[in-house]
Amino acid sequence: MHSDQTKERVGLDTVSDVGQPMHRLMTELYPICRSITGDGVRQTLKILGRILPLKIYEVPTGTQVFDWTVPKEWNIRDAYVKKLRGERVIDFQKSNLHVVSYSVPVNRRIPLDELQKHLFSLPNHPDWIPYRTSYYNEDWGFCLSERQRKALTDDIYEVCIESTLKDGNLTYAEYFLQGESEDEVLVSCHICHPSLCNDNLSGVSLSVQLAQHLGHQANRRYSYRFLFIPGTIGSITWLARNENRLNPIRHGLVVTCVGDAGRFTYKKSRRGDAEIDQAAQHVLKHCGHPYIVQEFSPYGYDERQFCSPGFNLPVGCLMRSPHGSFPEYHTSADNLEFVRPEDLQVSFNLYRELIDVLEGNRTYVNLNPKCEPQLGRRGLYGAIGADSHRKFDQMALLWVLNLSDNHHSLLDISIRAEMPFREIKWAAEALEKCGLLQETVLTD
Amino acid sequence: MHSDQTKERVGLDTVSDVGQPMHRLMTELYPICRSITGDGVRQTLKILGRILPLKIYEVPTGTQVFDWTVPKEWNIRDAYVKKLRGERVIDFQKSNLHVVSYSVPVNRRIPLDELQKHLFSLPNHPDWIPYRTSYYNEDWGFCLSERQRKALTDDIYEVCIESTLKDGNLTYAEYFLQGESEDEVLVSCHICHPSLCNDNLSGVSLSVQLAQHLGHQANRRYSYRFLFIPGTIGSITWLARNENRLNPIRHGLVVTCVGDAGRFTYKKSRRGDAEIDQAAQHVLKHCGHPYIVQEFSPYGYDERQFCSPGFNLPVGCLMRSPHGSFPEYHTSADNLEFVRPEDLQVSFNLYRELIDVLEGNRTYVNLNPKCEPQLGRRGLYGAIGADSHRKFDQMALLWVLNLSDNHHSLLDISIRAEMPFREIKWAAEALEKCGLLQETVLTD
Amino acid sequence: MHSDQTKERVGLDTVSDVGQPMHRLMTELYPICRSITGDGVRQTLKILGRILPLKIYEVPTGTQVFDWTVPKEWNIRDAYVKKLRGERVIDFQKSNLHVVSYSVPVNRRIPLDELQKHLFSLPNHPDWIPYRTSYYNEDWGFCLSERQRKALTDDIYEVCIESTLKDGNLTYAEYFLQGESEDEVLVSCHICHPSLCNDNLSGVSLSVQLAQHLGHQANRRYSYRFLFIPGTIGSITWLARNENRLNPIRHGLVVTCVGDAGRFTYKKSRRGDAEIDQAAQHVLKHCGHPYIVQEFSPYGYDERQFCSPGFNLPVGCLMRSPHGSFPEYHTSADNLEFVRPEDLQVSFNLYRELIDVLEGNRTYVNLNPKCEPQLGRRGLYGAIGADSHRKFDQMALLWVLNLSDNHHSLLDISIRAEMPFREIKWAAEALEKCGLLQETVLTD
Repeated sequence: MHSDQTKERVGLDTVSDVGQPMHRLMTELYPICRSITGDGVRQTLKILGRILPLKIYEVPTGTQVFDWTVPKEWNIRDAYVKKLRGERVIDFQKSNLHVVSYSVPVNRRIPLDELQKHLFSLPNHPDWIPYRTSYYNEDWGFCLSERQRKALTDDIYEVCIESTLKDGNLTYAEYFLQGESEDEVLVSCHICHPSLCNDNLSGVSLSVQLAQHLGHQANRRYSYRFLFIPGTIGSITWLARNENRLNPIRHGLVVTCVGDAGRFTYKKSRRGDAEIDQAAQHVLKHCGHPYIVQEFSPYGYDERQFCSPGFNLPVGCLMRSPHGSFPEYHTSADNLEFVRPEDLQVSFNLYRELIDVLEGNRTYVNLNPKCEPQLGRRGLYGAIGADSHRKFDQMALLWVLNLSDNHHSLLDISIRAEMPFREIKWAAEALEKCGLLQETVLTD
Repeated sequence: MHSDQTKERVGLDTVSDVGQPMHRLMTELYPICRSITGDGVRQTLKILGRILPLKIYEVPTGTQVFDWTVPKEWNIRDAYVKKLRGERVIDFQKSNLHVVSYSVPVNRRIPLDELQKHLFSLPNHPDWIPYRTSYYNEDWGFCLSERQRKALTDDIYEVCIESTLKDGNLTYAEYFLQGESEDEVLVSCHICHPSLCNDNLSGVSLSVQLAQHLGHQANRRYSYRFLFIPGTIGSITWLARNENRLNPIRHGLVVTCVGDAGRFTYKKSRRGDAEIDQAAQHVLKHCGHPYIVQEFSPYGYDERQFCSPGFNLPVGCLMRSPHGSFPEYHTSADNLEFVRPEDLQVSFNLYRELIDVLEGNRTYVNLNPKCEPQLGRRGLYGAIGADSHRKFDQMALLWVLNLSDNHHSLLDISIRAEMPFREIKWAAEALEKCGLLQETVLTD
Repeated sequence: MHSDQTKERVGLDTVSDVGQPMHRLMTELYPICRSITGDGVRQTLKILGRILPLKIYEVPTGTQVFDWTVPKEWNIRDAYVKKLRGERVIDFQKSNLHVVSYSVPVNRRIPLDELQKHLFSLPNHPDWIPYRTSYYNEDWGFCLSERQRKALTDDIYEVCIESTLKDGNLTYAEYFLQGESEDEVLVSCHICHPSLCNDNLSGVSLSVQLAQHLGHQANRRYSYRFLFIPGTIGSITWLARNENRLNPIRHGLVVTCVGDAGRFTYKKSRRGDAEIDQAAQHVLKHCGHPYIVQEFSPYGYDERQFCSPGFNLPVGCLMRSPHGSFPEYHTSADNLEFVRPEDLQVSFNLYRELIDVLEGNRTYVNLNPKCEPQLGRRGLYGAIGADSHRKFDQMALLWVLNLSDNHHSLLDISIRAEMPFREIKWAAEALEKCGLLQETVLTD
């Protein structure tokens, strides 16, 4: 029993290297100027489409999605602030963060004091360019480093933003993996940020990697639906268009900020005690990395929409450093150096481990519930001389037998036994093979 | 929206000065010799009646009130212990604490060793006079400082207590403030202590101030019933006479020991999770003063009777230092210097804040429960550039929207959001004005 | 009221000396070579039978007991390893731990390197002999000290085990004490260990002492069933033969490791919140000795069987140092010096205290639930001058009155009041005598 399982025993640190390919994908996506609509999103999805057979949706401007309306589509070709003599002092071609996202077109000469009202910089980080947006308030602006800002001394500058803001579409994509059951796991990431890595090219890249990994697995219990959507308006649009198809969603995860070196953060779903919440906490407890667990709050990423009271879906958010908690957040310092392949790898492993728990979290009933069965004559008990490894396994066997009473899933047992899920799952499989256990349906 | 609310934002430290008037009322009441019956109580209520239109009740001696009987009425004119040569060594005229309350009349010569059995002093506090009573055991006694006691060296003393203990009445008063609803808040204080300030002239004074404050408020949601009663026998008498009128009581507070400088103490109702318990804990958490919360115990003040198992009313007790926990308790050191206007003021503010929570704790339902509504187009969302104050407000808006699902009151939301109640209430009012929220009835 | 109760106030440290007789019984039982079957068990039960009128059961080899089969009976007359010249280097006559329990007969010359595979010693404790068994795997072996092992230098040794392993019986005993009710308390100890004291001659001895003690009590509320059984197979056999008679079991305790000086350990039943669990925690909290409480786990002693999911009996385990947590465990160092009369005494007292709680844990209803009754006129309240002892009693009276509402047992009240059960029980008895309380049935 133990020998043929050994090959399955793939711990967090022994999986094949996916950190490098994840980082390479981010490197390719990095230069594109994404926003909540526009060609940057399409270009991004085209690149992802080379890896995954995405289904791409275009939702027209003006479409009503609950309380919101799909906005005009924004595109940008070029933008700059230049001296009257011609030298560009702020240049969109050097960084797409320089332009406030959804800036309306502008092309004129402007005195410095008026220009200042349209400039955003970070006095505490004089070399970083901040990231700003103005989606629902028609305006324009430039982001620049504090150092650049201090160098602006001319009286008048020439300002140009070659953008378009007109009727078009909101673009998003789905990747669906059919499993044995119609029950779904939702994995959602946002694709609306320009040259920013942790938030959220890391989430895009990890989602792609996870989808690939799951696509290679035989016998998936759950179906998986991956969403590549713009933040907020994207999830609202998706929920509005799929309102009648949410019922099969059993678990969900919002994937973001998974490339930095910070401790893990799991933010619970609004329910707080959903299976995804318990599974995530269990996996984190045994992962060997520092972590914290946060209660749900109605701020953050698209879990805000998935967990709105009208849906209350069991969707949590598993990340490293949460939004706003690292200084590089929403600045040019959230770049390709800030996220590292080895950290992406660890995050991927944790997601995989968590999915493994969801996949494997079955419920069994002990067919020999009166007293312990005799494990020894089934080869499940060490003879003379205790072998510590087997003894550990034996505790898992005893826990599974003791708690397999229709009221405890394998995850429940793992939590109660304070043992890694996989140890409990192996024990359950061994006991099922011996005819001591039978799968059943969990009852409260 | 924010500007017209600013004037309502009255924090704990900005209320008009009520500490001085509260202390002046205590000063006027201080010299009166109160007990559980008698003219001292009547005189006290007469003074309060100048401020509040009290309804005064007289309950005859011998009236059966549950397991108890209204006792004889006790009055006292003079009392002393004097040397045979005529010098008073213990003199009721100097402090009404000198006589054990309810002492029967006595007038005779007595040897010192017999007198000693009737004397009470505090060896650890040689200058303080203790406070003692003998309501239900006909006896007599004198309280005196340890220093006075040690000075007693004569062989024989002349002892005189000019008291009467005969059929009469138990006197108490009610002040009722009608609100929009018949639902009542009960506020009870005891008026049976002689020259003692924290216990409980502070409670009497704060109750009067609170009644005045509420009387000036328009649109009170609740009706308020203030009780000015002797301790124990008074609450038993009131409960016995109002047994069939307890049903409207939604919340209750026993007011005592609110004038010292100690940290706040909230003693929960017997239920432990009543709305008053949650509201008091919430207000204390955000009040900026040190505090502790105690579980209910069947010892203390009149909450013992209100929370007896046959009634189990949701009555808590909000005080500073609890009975017995400060050395001045039940001694002459609990005097007008021990309680200070500034501490009375802070206590009043906290009571007011707590009443505000009860008044404002409504339940709403989010009329746009699927995804967040678009706050921006309703002027509830900051545009470019985050203003930290507005961001704080926005969290309140998001919490209210997320949890307004029929199952959470505004207090529930405040607790979950760990935000002051008033922030949550303002948010709810703003959302209601926008048509995003509608008042509903809380369901479990 | 207080005077006639004083004689009942027997605290943990004032009970008559039972530590010495308990240790003497252990001394008598110590030399016997017990196993899960055989004459050692019979000889043990015969000695116990001189003290208690045991009912002894013999269950034939081959009897099916749930998933198990009663094994062959094992007996042993002599065993040794000796040099070819005749000197015994390992001698069963010196310690019955030297032979692996259930060793099959052997009588031959054997080279040292082959012998080594059958030897067990403890390198970290070179003077101690370990204790090993091979019940369900036909094998043989010797246990010896590391020092003895190192002295084996000859090439060939003569090995002899004069044991028999053949059809016979499994022997166990019951002692039943009829109480007022058919409801039962189960007290179980294992009798299968050879010369080992803490595990578990201490448990046997304490069970015997407790049975004697209870036998002398008049008016036992519960019936008591004491089991003297071999570990694991014994409890499985007993459960299989009594499957239809388990219903009356209200509480149960597995008695083991009660003779060492370690802190107390209470291991909860699988239910976790059974009355026995609450009672044990309460008694430990007030016992004045260090203790810990462990959640149930499916490893340990016969609670594993009693708490298997098919039975889920409310059986906990109250011990000092748990199995495996003290180095002497399952070695020759767990001897008559390791367990001391004074520690046995303390353990006995705690068991007695716990039984007292179970016996006395009745539920009352306050017949005067509206306000407090007047305790003074019933002699239950101190007059002038507080006596601290009486005041303590008064808190018990007030707690009992306040919580006697059909929903709180006396144990519930003790836990809530954080007062020793006996104080609460005395208060309830005093109140019942006054007609203020009436026994009732606990409702949730």
